[in-house]
Amino acid sequence: MRKVCVAGVGMTKFGVSEKSCIELFAEAALEAVNASNIKVTDIQSVHFGNVFGDFEEGQAVMGSFAAREIGCPPSTPALRYEGACATASVAIRDAFIAVASGLYDVVLAGGTERCMAMGTPLATRTFAMCTEGKYESYTGITFPGVFAMMTHLYAKKYNIPLAKLKERMAMVAVKNHYHGTMNPLAQFQKEITAASVLKGFMVCDPLQLLDCCPFTDGAAAIVIASEEKAKKMVEKPVYILGAGQGSGAPLFRQKDITVHEARIAASKKAYEMAGVGPKDIDVAEVHDCFTIAEIALMENLGFYDFGTASEAVERGESKIGGKLPLNPSGGLKAKGHPIGATGAAQAYEIVKQLRGECGARQVEGAKIGMTDTLGGDATTVVDIIYGI
Amino acid sequence: MRKVCVAGVGMTKFGVSEKSCIELFAEAALEAVNASNIKVTDIQSVHFGNVFGDFEEGQAVMGSFAAREIGCPPSTPALRYEGACATASVAIRDAFIAVASGLYDVVLAGGTERCMAMGTPLATRTFAMCTEGKYESYTGITFPGVFAMMTHLYAKKYNIPLAKLKERMAMVAVKNHYHGTMNPLAQFQKEITAASVLKGFMVCDPLQLLDCCPFTDGAAAIVIASEEKAKKMVEKPVYILGAGQGSGAPLFRQKDITVHEARIAASKKAYEMAGVGPKDIDVAEVHDCFTIAEIALMENLGFYDFGTASEAVERGESKIGGKLPLNPSGGLKAKGHPIGATGAAQAYEIVKQLRGECGARQVEGAKIGMTDTLGGDATTVVDIIYGI
Repeated sequence: MRKVCVAGVGMTKFGVSEKSCIELFAEAALEAVNASNIKVTDIQSVHFGNVFGDFEEGQAVMGSFAAREIGCPPSTPALRYEGACATASVAIRDAFIAVASGLYDVVLAGGTERCMAMGTPLATRTFAMCTEGKYESYTGITFPGVFAMMTHLYAKKYNIPLAKLKERMAMVAVKNHYHGTMNPLAQFQKEITAASVLKGFMVCDPLQLLDCCPFTDGAAAIVIASEEKAKKMVEKPVYILGAGQGSGAPLFRQKDITVHEARIAASKKAYEMAGVGPKDIDVAEVHDCFTIAEIALMENLGFYDFGTASEAVERGESKIGGKLPLNPSGGLKAKGHPIGATGAAQAYEIVKQLRGECGARQVEGAKIGMTDTLGGDATTVVDIIYGI
Repeated sequence: MRKVCVAGVGMTKFGVSEKSCIELFAEAALEAVNASNIKVTDIQSVHFGNVFGDFEEGQAVMGSFAAREIGCPPSTPALRYEGACATASVAIRDAFIAVASGLYDVVLAGGTERCMAMGTPLATRTFAMCTEGKYESYTGITFPGVFAMMTHLYAKKYNIPLAKLKERMAMVAVKNHYHGTMNPLAQFQKEITAASVLKGFMVCDPLQLLDCCPFTDGAAAIVIASEEKAKKMVEKPVYILGAGQGSGAPLFRQKDITVHEARIAASKKAYEMAGVGPKDIDVAEVHDCFTIAEIALMENLGFYDFGTASEAVERGESKIGGKLPLNPSGGLKAKGHPIGATGAAQAYEIVKQLRGECGARQVEGAKIGMTDTLGGDATTVVDIIYGI
């Protein structure tokens, strides 16, 4: 396998949009193509992520339509991937393999989603199709329920008073909203306080409204190329150093839902391929779908020992300027979470960070970055390590 | 890129099933694993196809669940692909690339679908989400309508009286049902007559009931391995000589719906990679979702000049024993069409044919075989060439 890089990246404003999934994708994709100083016809394969286009707008087989929408010819293959909220990272990892194989020199990868038009009750139930169907979603559980259970178990297991844990979880929300104020593409660009998190509407005990990421419309895309091609395309190609993907058991078969075996396996593979460890990561975009999720992943990715991450949050280590800044973009929490696009938006941020193009939210001196994307009940997890 | 082979293959009985998509997949996958003389833990990556699991049984992110269901560990990535009716062939082609890249030595690819529980009216409308949503399915068109228009245009363009064309289309149905009588896994294993086709219920003028493939539940899977590994696993590995995938424009942007630019591009790529031409193909499993579809593809794949394939059908050239036997399995028409599984079932048949394991329906001396799978309005087309 040969060396592979990211050339250009593109992303729409996240929030509410009247555009279709394909129109959103086209906007992000063409930005990535332009930023790569190539023509659309230079793209040899399209790796397209979308989760619920059929439910959202009655549209399946979107990959090919998206490829043609941006001007690709009939000879360009387009693959649609679905891996719940990890969808776009599945697409990116697979695009990386396609270029590493030598079959293609230049490919496009990304994702798109429209979550807003459904409204919260229907979207919540639609998303619950990403939990297991015979024993889980069947009982009525939705994702706020899954992560609420995780919170209770985490507090119990590590003997942290729930009120204390909730204060630290609120700090995750406050941090990511603060980061989001510096991201012009973020859905929410205003600061919140810990008090407002703890006073929020109770979604699923103990998770309150501001513990939860929002529903979002948006798209993001990146151009992936062989090292040789990428060096000719852009001044600062960003290397994909390693990528791993894991498969978790259904929730009812997981021994401990605070320990994510798919995430541990995925990150191990990514670290090994990249030849780095958790301590080498300078900045990471991680899957903070709920505040407890960010705490749990800090441990599952090996950044902190199990049971200790919430203290690190309290010490401010995950803020920009801290020991390991997490979600400088604002994360899913403030930047937004258009599920099929999220992994690509994470890649967008890390590429910009490693190039030093993030302005006020820049993590100074970042050389190695990571994206971590979780689908379902940690059922599909993808970790990718980038370097400059 | 290195040489890649198919080792073992597996397939469920096609028809009606009470099993879930994942259970069906597991049945086919474990048969393929056993036939490959390996353990499930030898599989390094799972390439899983499914189109409408969310609509059919409220289950998304099925790839990971399927991988765990058959016993894969957390470190095994599982990718779900959706490319309408070409889904499983998209998965197979991508699995081929993953092995060719050198990243993996042994992977599993396949697909699964449950179409029967919805019933015909809902399934027809659900499948119509694979046409373009803003201008096509929005008007009420479904796939029988698309292929009915194709039939009218074909008759007009080549100045073939519609009654004569319909007689020849009926011969496609009669042939594929005849082939199906020799396939114990086929949904329909009884002969039909041209008269019964032409007397059938009118689905969408001029397509009658027996011009249309059925709805089907089923799954199929294949194990793909590097040449080196495959030779150790089975006596007769079957080589994947070439694979191509194309992306067609939405129907309303197609100049001539009897000419499939995605199919022409996909097959051209497959022929080039394999170093063969249409005349070298000994047997093919092709996408006969409607009788007219088989005639059109015979031309788009380069087997016959445009406008001449229906005469070749009349001469019996596509029967087992004819010049180029098509769909010895019975095809989508008689074997059945569980949309997300179809491409893998085609691969199953071609591998068995090239190994000489097809009993009464064996195409004698077949050395080079091809699968052709179409998704949507020829929006996603995959062609794969196999050799022994």
